[in-house]
Amino acid sequence: MADSLRIGIAGLGTVGSSLVRILQQRSKELAITCGRAIEIIAVSARDRSRDRGLDLAGITWFDTPEEMAKKAEIDVLVELVGGASGAAEKAVRAALSRGIHVVTANKALLAKHGVELAIMAEEKGALLNFEAAVAGGIPIIKALRESLTGNHVSRIYGIMNGTCNYILTKMEKEGLSFEACLKEAQRLGYAEADPAFDIEGNDTAHKLAILTTLAFGSKIAADDIYLEGISNISIEDIQAAADLGYRIKLLGVAHVTESGIEQRVHPTMVPLDSVIAQVDGVTNAVAVESDILGELLMVGPGAGGNATASAVLGDIADIAKSRPGVQQVPVLGRPAKSLTEYRRAKMKSHEGGYFIRLTVKDKAGVFASIATRMAENNISLESIVQHSRVHTEGGPQTIILVTHATMEDAIRKAVKAIKSEKYLVNEPQVIRIERT
Amino acid sequence: MADSLRIGIAGLGTVGSSLVRILQQRSKELAITCGRAIEIIAVSARDRSRDRGLDLAGITWFDTPEEMAKKAEIDVLVELVGGASGAAEKAVRAALSRGIHVVTANKALLAKHGVELAIMAEEKGALLNFEAAVAGGIPIIKALRESLTGNHVSRIYGIMNGTCNYILTKMEKEGLSFEACLKEAQRLGYAEADPAFDIEGNDTAHKLAILTTLAFGSKIAADDIYLEGISNISIEDIQAAADLGYRIKLLGVAHVTESGIEQRVHPTMVPLDSVIAQVDGVTNAVAVESDILGELLMVGPGAGGNATASAVLGDIADIAKSRPGVQQVPVLGRPAKSLTEYRRAKMKSHEGGYFIRLTVKDKAGVFASIATRMAENNISLESIVQHSRVHTEGGPQTIILVTHATMEDAIRKAVKAIKSEKYLVNEPQVIRIERT
Repeated sequence: MADSLRIGIAGLGTVGSSLVRILQQRSKELAITCGRAIEIIAVSARDRSRDRGLDLAGITWFDTPEEMAKKAEIDVLVELVGGASGAAEKAVRAALSRGIHVVTANKALLAKHGVELAIMAEEKGALLNFEAAVAGGIPIIKALRESLTGNHVSRIYGIMNGTCNYILTKMEKEGLSFEACLKEAQRLGYAEADPAFDIEGNDTAHKLAILTTLAFGSKIAADDIYLEGISNISIEDIQAAADLGYRIKLLGVAHVTESGIEQRVHPTMVPLDSVIAQVDGVTNAVAVESDILGELLMVGPGAGGNATASAVLGDIADIAKSRPGVQQVPVLGRPAKSLTEYRRAKMKSHEGGYFIRLTVKDKAGVFASIATRMAENNISLESIVQHSRVHTEGGPQTIILVTHATMEDAIRKAVKAIKSEKYLVNEPQVIRIERT
Repeated sequence: MADSLRIGIAGLGTVGSSLVRILQQRSKELAITCGRAIEIIAVSARDRSRDRGLDLAGITWFDTPEEMAKKAEIDVLVELVGGASGAAEKAVRAALSRGIHVVTANKALLAKHGVELAIMAEEKGALLNFEAAVAGGIPIIKALRESLTGNHVSRIYGIMNGTCNYILTKMEKEGLSFEACLKEAQRLGYAEADPAFDIEGNDTAHKLAILTTLAFGSKIAADDIYLEGISNISIEDIQAAADLGYRIKLLGVAHVTESGIEQRVHPTMVPLDSVIAQVDGVTNAVAVESDILGELLMVGPGAGGNATASAVLGDIADIAKSRPGVQQVPVLGRPAKSLTEYRRAKMKSHEGGYFIRLTVKDKAGVFASIATRMAENNISLESIVQHSRVHTEGGPQTIILVTHATMEDAIRKAVKAIKSEKYLVNEPQVIRIERT
């Protein structure tokens, strides 16, 4: 049997602790499967005195991840610290500069420094694995950078934030408001005390940026993503969606168009009978459309200590199964220096169906006016209906429009024209429809 | 850049021709992605004179795959001939004995000789990749043998035969009989002229046997699979399933129980609102339940020249990205010599819910008799209803039973007792319900 693979783990939170436990409890079978033992020889975490219920006897403790990455005699640095910069970045750079392989679950770090780190890794002959950084336990990174080699991807989309999907599912199933469901998510630990990063779509955007690069071979462009969160989705939207045969999901979508790559994160109507519409609660799902394979969809746990640890373990095992320094899977699917510049498609040019919900004063001519504004912008309507569930005689009236495929620009102009008409009671709601 | 990877392709049918085209058209980008060129230097197919629309200039033609495997200066043999024995087997053995890597789409070969071939490959330091052998373009082999390393799998199940899923989908959507839908499948090329291998479940069983080994680390036991096809599924079953909130799918299921491993292929009721129930037409889906990751589901094209070629290409690219002879991913998830003996769980001990459809004479006491037979066998009923859709006064009556989780043995005894009562008009239909 070959020499053991010596790893150092930075970060002993939920994922790190779970990983230590699994590596210790299953050391014998992992040694058989991988052809050599995986040995934790170093750890680093913030609080040395905290009782994590872990047996760390014989493992060298380092006060900072960077120190561990610089000094420990490790083959692999497992970075579970998190954060786009700071301790995590320093440790990863230190490891790669020594030619030490890195396994990380850190989406923020990759979204910000991924290309640079990939170049470093490839120059030093080190591997940089990050399956856990996107959609937790779903092996989407492996699928994109290995299984789909040779394919031209045209679109990738998915539910990549469990918090949002939990809230949207609960709103629909129990008829509760966004605020009530967010509170419940916080109570259950599915949402942070400050939930903005999740519910405004930033978390999804980080993940999408990484997938976009793997799918299209362009440099990571996490700041070029169109972003809309779910905080203004109302129970009325969800019910109207259901009536029309749709369900609302927060999707991250990256799509190749003639004018560049669209990257967008927004609430999206998907057909009720599509597979992705059935993905409930904190579960994640990612779909990839490519020209040779066709459409591939993966569904699984997107977060949680164990699911994330499973992805990290898979990355470590991949290194253990190769002899050190010889496998050459390019970090970002192709050699990092061959990545192309990201060419952003303008959101105004996005083409698709739209759902528009208007709350209007109950008076003659409103219907006609709305239809006229749409026609003036060459928007072809699939339907325009007064939504009966919420109408009371004389009170504000809800009108729901569904358009055929049209340009975002036209929608914005039509909505602006309608707003200038003064019969709107409140802000119009516009939700994009995605073919799935 | 490293030396090119020289491959020989045996079999130039749909998949082989598609693969040749892709490798030629995308040779430049593949060379960049993989870090070296992939070069087809040899081919072998049955009919040399047939025009396949391929440019084979400069490629050495061999009259048999075996000769190619023995004589060509190749790094990888791509075996697309098919069949459990014969030319495919000879070629693969010849290649492995020379230490040449093998990529194959041949499920029958692996189901029969997989363990032996894996031992050969590992002894010779050759890779044996077979992503295309199960569920076409879905990267389930990679997920099981790489991503899920360290996990204990408890159950794996899936829709692995597009022909059956197409027929069942069409029966439900159009209310047509099994025979009519089979004919349509044959017309569209989704079913063979002799469809038995698909519709009786054998094809699914081959795939399941391979997945079982990867999931549970036991030797391949393709002959130990309980088999029931879809040919006696009627439109009445499908409609009754829908009324009860279920859909019928042909599933292959492998499940660890206390008494061993259950491997079974049979028509199965899955909840209508489950993700797998939405998998329509020729699409495949495979779900894996494991203790660290949780539940993972993959959905994608299970057949077709391009989707299969995509999986083959992924396998070739994996070899191209490693330096030859150094990667050590065990062929069957762990070193083949460490695989355990397969311990078969008796089908009689299977535990689950059951759907039972009885066509009975319309006379007093039948309901009571059926309920009594169930009670005598300690079968707890979720429901027992006369099925109104098909009842005409005085004519034969349909009774549908749905049981709570119970033992197969008890169901068999109860059904036998009911059959002895003489009020049945025809054979009882029994369909297992699977939790998904």
